[in-house]
Amino acid sequence: MSDCVFCRIIRGEIPSAKVYEDGNCYAFLDIGPWSWGHTLVVPKKHREHITEMSAAEFAAVSSVIPRIARAVLEATGAAGLNVLQNNGAVAGQAVAHLHFHLIPRHEGDGLGYRWNAKRYPAGEMDNYHRKILEALG
Amino acid sequence: MSDCVFCRIIRGEIPSAKVYEDGNCYAFLDIGPWSWGHTLVVPKKHREHITEMSAAEFAAVSSVIPRIARAVLEATGAAGLNVLQNNGAVAGQAVAHLHFHLIPRHEGDGLGYRWNAKRYPAGEMDNYHRKILEALG
Repeated sequence: MSDCVFCRIIRGEIPSAKVYEDGNCYAFLDIGPWSWGHTLVVPKKHREHITEMSAAEFAAVSSVIPRIARAVLEATGAAGLNVLQNNGAVAGQAVAHLHFHLIPRHEGDGLGYRWNAKRYPAGEMDNYHRKILEALG
Repeated sequence: MSDCVFCRIIRGEIPSAKVYEDGNCYAFLDIGPWSWGHTLVVPKKHREHITEMSAAEFAAVSSVIPRIARAVLEATGAAGLNVLQNNGAVAGQAVAHLHFHLIPRHEGDGLGYRWNAKRYPAGEMDNYHRKILEALG
């Protein structure tokens, strides 16, 4: 898309610290890193959400992530790493071009997912199970 | 692995609300959901971290995620979705068998990633860029 910031980075119209590129994807350092070495992996073809991705498209982008993750861990000396892909503003997606965050993690860094594990009320787990199976067809 | 809880679920030794299975992966509802319909997608072969995964292995598991994500969104009526894959206890990984969280998101649910965007001090972005490129070889 002509005005998408990630499409402009991929086309070289906006400079980036590129770490990887192939026919399907492009990876570069986030300029507002959550930790040093925070890297973004994006499909070259403009897609906004995972829901628009075919299995093959998603696999093509995903397939490079282990290699880039190993390099980011080695380069940063991090003890762990989050791979995060947000879909929708409500999910924290800030740029409307599908992207994977690779976030190096260190003890006591204060990052991570805010979760609040719940328990399903009686019957509700079966209910969601059935609904998801129905949606899968 | 014989005592891994996810390996036991895959073998049917522990019951699960399975939503999908193929030769490479298994998907089921998290029993401690962060939101209703929170689903886990795991490789059948025991792997702990992304660093152990080949491109093909990671792609094989990833390839089913868009389809499952669409079904989870439809079933839950969620407005968005996080795909999260944690590597290492420091990154929030609680079960030592690689897994993707699919977390349906709703306005005001209080979930999400705790981030704190920083700016690289002068020269440091170049430094990490170079280190990651070196590590990629």
